[in-house]
Amino acid sequence: MKKYLLNLLVGIITFFGLTELVFAETTMSEEGQYIFNSLAFYIGGVLVAFMAAGFCMLESGLVTTKSVSTIAAKNIGKFAIASIIFFLFGYNLAYGIPDGGYIGSFSMWSDGSEVGTGYSDSSDWFFQTMFVCATVSIVSGAVAERIKIWPFFLFAVIMAGFIYPISMGWQWGGGWLSTAGFSDFAGSTLVHACGGAAALAGVIVLGAREGRFTSRGGKRIMVPFAASSIPLVTLGTFLLWFGWFGFNGFSQLAMGTFDDVNAITKIAVNTHLAGAAGTVAGAAITRLIGGKTDIIMMLNGALAGLVAITAEPLTPSPVLAMVIGAVGAVIMYFGTKMLENFGLDDVVGAIPVHMFAGIFGTLIVPLSNGETSFSTQLVGVISVCAFSFVLSYVAFGAMKSTIGLRISKAAEKLGTDKAEIGVTAYSIRD
Amino acid sequence: MKKYLLNLLVGIITFFGLTELVFAETTMSEEGQYIFNSLAFYIGGVLVAFMAAGFCMLESGLVTTKSVSTIAAKNIGKFAIASIIFFLFGYNLAYGIPDGGYIGSFSMWSDGSEVGTGYSDSSDWFFQTMFVCATVSIVSGAVAERIKIWPFFLFAVIMAGFIYPISMGWQWGGGWLSTAGFSDFAGSTLVHACGGAAALAGVIVLGAREGRFTSRGGKRIMVPFAASSIPLVTLGTFLLWFGWFGFNGFSQLAMGTFDDVNAITKIAVNTHLAGAAGTVAGAAITRLIGGKTDIIMMLNGALAGLVAITAEPLTPSPVLAMVIGAVGAVIMYFGTKMLENFGLDDVVGAIPVHMFAGIFGTLIVPLSNGETSFSTQLVGVISVCAFSFVLSYVAFGAMKSTIGLRISKAAEKLGTDKAEIGVTAYSIRD
Amino acid sequence: MKKYLLNLLVGIITFFGLTELVFAETTMSEEGQYIFNSLAFYIGGVLVAFMAAGFCMLESGLVTTKSVSTIAAKNIGKFAIASIIFFLFGYNLAYGIPDGGYIGSFSMWSDGSEVGTGYSDSSDWFFQTMFVCATVSIVSGAVAERIKIWPFFLFAVIMAGFIYPISMGWQWGGGWLSTAGFSDFAGSTLVHACGGAAALAGVIVLGAREGRFTSRGGKRIMVPFAASSIPLVTLGTFLLWFGWFGFNGFSQLAMGTFDDVNAITKIAVNTHLAGAAGTVAGAAITRLIGGKTDIIMMLNGALAGLVAITAEPLTPSPVLAMVIGAVGAVIMYFGTKMLENFGLDDVVGAIPVHMFAGIFGTLIVPLSNGETSFSTQLVGVISVCAFSFVLSYVAFGAMKSTIGLRISKAAEKLGTDKAEIGVTAYSIRD
Repeated sequence: MKKYLLNLLVGIITFFGLTELVFAETTMSEEGQYIFNSLAFYIGGVLVAFMAAGFCMLESGLVTTKSVSTIAAKNIGKFAIASIIFFLFGYNLAYGIPDGGYIGSFSMWSDGSEVGTGYSDSSDWFFQTMFVCATVSIVSGAVAERIKIWPFFLFAVIMAGFIYPISMGWQWGGGWLSTAGFSDFAGSTLVHACGGAAALAGVIVLGAREGRFTSRGGKRIMVPFAASSIPLVTLGTFLLWFGWFGFNGFSQLAMGTFDDVNAITKIAVNTHLAGAAGTVAGAAITRLIGGKTDIIMMLNGALAGLVAITAEPLTPSPVLAMVIGAVGAVIMYFGTKMLENFGLDDVVGAIPVHMFAGIFGTLIVPLSNGETSFSTQLVGVISVCAFSFVLSYVAFGAMKSTIGLRISKAAEKLGTDKAEIGVTAYSIRD
Repeated sequence: MKKYLLNLLVGIITFFGLTELVFAETTMSEEGQYIFNSLAFYIGGVLVAFMAAGFCMLESGLVTTKSVSTIAAKNIGKFAIASIIFFLFGYNLAYGIPDGGYIGSFSMWSDGSEVGTGYSDSSDWFFQTMFVCATVSIVSGAVAERIKIWPFFLFAVIMAGFIYPISMGWQWGGGWLSTAGFSDFAGSTLVHACGGAAALAGVIVLGAREGRFTSRGGKRIMVPFAASSIPLVTLGTFLLWFGWFGFNGFSQLAMGTFDDVNAITKIAVNTHLAGAAGTVAGAAITRLIGGKTDIIMMLNGALAGLVAITAEPLTPSPVLAMVIGAVGAVIMYFGTKMLENFGLDDVVGAIPVHMFAGIFGTLIVPLSNGETSFSTQLVGVISVCAFSFVLSYVAFGAMKSTIGLRISKAAEKLGTDKAEIGVTAYSIRD
Repeated sequence: MKKYLLNLLVGIITFFGLTELVFAETTMSEEGQYIFNSLAFYIGGVLVAFMAAGFCMLESGLVTTKSVSTIAAKNIGKFAIASIIFFLFGYNLAYGIPDGGYIGSFSMWSDGSEVGTGYSDSSDWFFQTMFVCATVSIVSGAVAERIKIWPFFLFAVIMAGFIYPISMGWQWGGGWLSTAGFSDFAGSTLVHACGGAAALAGVIVLGAREGRFTSRGGKRIMVPFAASSIPLVTLGTFLLWFGWFGFNGFSQLAMGTFDDVNAITKIAVNTHLAGAAGTVAGAAITRLIGGKTDIIMMLNGALAGLVAITAEPLTPSPVLAMVIGAVGAVIMYFGTKMLENFGLDDVVGAIPVHMFAGIFGTLIVPLSNGETSFSTQLVGVISVCAFSFVLSYVAFGAMKSTIGLRISKAAEKLGTDKAEIGVTAYSIRD
């Protein structure tokens, strides 16, 4: 009897074509989507937060032993400062941009969550804040071992409060780049090249570490400086890699539908394979050219591959993702050599990894994503990099000629740990 | 035609005011809520588990080089022991308390999950177990480098099996403190001050490490002991910070509704900003007072800020959360100096971070949460701290006068790694 | 009025017995299950990815100081290589096996997700790929400090592309072992014993490190080699432990129902308690037998406990899970001694941890899971281990007699870091 009535009801529903109504309601409710979307931001935010620890370990491992406490202090400090500034006005400067506009508003972020918005505002702020922390992190490694700690913190305020939010808002805030059709899914340009361009400005203004370059027969020679701890560099790279699963995957910004969760996981696969191919490329190129399999180039190769796929991790096939990752690593390798030839001292290789591979990744988007054009991608890359480079150059330059940017020669010889922090990094005896 | 009928049906439903029924059913099913809630406990539990690794790295980095293997052994050991004991009777001692009562029952935990309870019992046990591990971790750092390893493990049994479950149950198990109106969202007092009070008892009973204090002109002087690895301390702090996203966020204990996921993410924002403000406060105060920017005070400042916001991470505005975090860090700073003046040797600063900032965070709850009163908060703080301190003092004292608590002077000179573990921590050569 | 109509409607629905239709639809929609299942694979994949970092830290800490950069390079390298190969053909070799068959097809993996399959294909690939990375990781630690880096990478190709996928497919791909009734929930045999058997082959073919064994009075004596960093070993173990929450929990392969999420969280509890019991067993046995509480045996005890519970983490009671974990650790302890007596040099103890405890865990399944038989378990263990051992032995042997497998004596004396990588691992001064 029950069965009969049930079939009857189904019959009636089908007859009147009402299935849309019933099934639309039951596939995934508005509240369910809201929870999934907010959870996506939450998990994504935690994963991207791990990148802050990753950068800290990578940089702590790559600097020389007398600057390790300092770089650790800079990393935890800028994690804190960037978050506070982004709350105070950075977020609204980015996301308060009028449609097609250039700059948002100076105001404090606040949570105005409603079911209708589709996700909790706090979850969104949490996720986006971890991105600004990553952007500032790119700078700290490049300028390590000679920049004073408090001027660096002031630069973190400028970067997190102005440079990154304004240029990022051009795209993700719905500003003019977005209107122009620029495409940068998770930030090859908006995060990585932007941070790398700022790092380049810092490296130029600061100059190289004492003794980093010497000349032999009129030719500039780079003197190798020993990294303090390779296992920490490796740990840092692993943490960054895992963080990228959040960075790229949850930049889908939603998880409440079949299509969204498919996109998130497809992105994870492409991201992972691009990083893998970058690692192998870094190993192969150093083995072929230098004879040894350079661990640092493997690690930076992984990161360059991850940076390169970030602009478009969804549309490429996995094979194309691997090609993009491998080419990103090769660009990083030759970019590193180029910087050395110019006498630029980028302590951790942040500029080749984040700026060069990021630019490449952004320009290659049209290859897999038919809705973009190379020229618009070029406009986006140039405008963001130029904006970041010029403002950073001015900011570093202004600090240099006022409060001072670089530690004294005596302090550099002593090491920043003793000079600025007062805590040596290691006290290890057998 | 279809569209017409669909509109008709919607019209009928709306006319008869039946939307409540339809939409109540479709917003989130009982099973969906059950899954979300259990998943919340699972993710939260994994994040809080990372705090165990965080404590281990922080403590391994802060002890001197001859006690690193020992502190690592203590950390993995107490992670194991606390979990087993909490399973055997700790959980039911806490959550088996009668309404408004004082103590639960001695019985093994078991899973009795039903859809109606709203979440999987196993997920809840998993989450709560990681909290007891955190509580015991607070003690191990403070008493490092001179407590014998097996007496420490015995204390882990006492702490995880009796002290923490009983006093925590007074509130979270629905005991007398809960009835009295005490408020401690994620455990500023129930976890952090409780652990800190036990640590204080341990530090008093054990006495300071050999050579830690000397006197000059009749005045007590603290001799600086070099931390073995600052990058590991920093890594540990990052891991603890990330763990706090689970610790505070998922103490909402549910994720299956709009309101719950909003609360979780709002808590994440406040928690993050409190930690950030604590970091900046730690940097600023050491730079202003001592001239150098002390990395250790930045890291402990972050932790003190996180501890302080833990009692009420939901109701404060983000700005108030930052104020609470910063004040927590300042209290930690002066608390550290005070302990030194008293000749108390807290190796990692666990007492100022967890007890002092925890007490402050609990007492400040009424400022943002109108449902609490200062006097009830004070009663809660005093009763939990006194209970933990007295029982820990008795436990440590009893061990001291029976099986022995402190390693011999010869062993301390040799270092606990060689004396107790037989494995030196580092064998690092250039 | 509203209330009246609402009750009327509920009355009508109840009267006609239509509740099944309404409630079946609202418990959890197909799309909701799809999202939950895919999210489970995603979170699980990220957690298991952490195991790659865990293995890297564990191995970096346990080798001597002159091989740390090399082992780090091997770990990041095989993480990349195994993933690429598993994409190119490993996955389909495993999951393309015909029902009850022996080998799948050589073809590239591709995503063919549909709502009907219940989860995103990409999420599944992501999760499974992290398992192959774990399997290869087991080998790298055992053969450390004397295997050449590129032959090791070639072995990673063979392991990730042939050995693991084929034998794993016998069970998880629905091949002959699965048909025979073999049971191995998350891979005590398919992952751990398989990897351990390959490690054993490598250790035999390679021989011990120079100076590892000496003889006194005709008896073989093992010379202790100092581990480079115990805190990194401990960190690695913690990361592996947390990774196991994904490894075992999400091997449930679904999260979209009441029963699935209950299983996931019950597994987490059993897994955690088995690891905890293994830790305590490792501490107790070394304290009782050797007098000192050996941190390395505590850590390997934790891992052995986790490996042992992996074959069946769902059906045992928590108490039985602890017994299984503790016995696994004891087997690991005596297995370690046995290998030493045979003059086999397993640098990190991978064979006793993964192979011996893995075999034990698989054979003990019938104790709690009534659907399995000891004889079938034995068939599964023997066939997988023999397959892995023989193929690995042949692969290592073939490389040895062609391209060369072991570094030169001069290189070994110098250390692989200088000989092969060109980057020393540590440059740490006080």
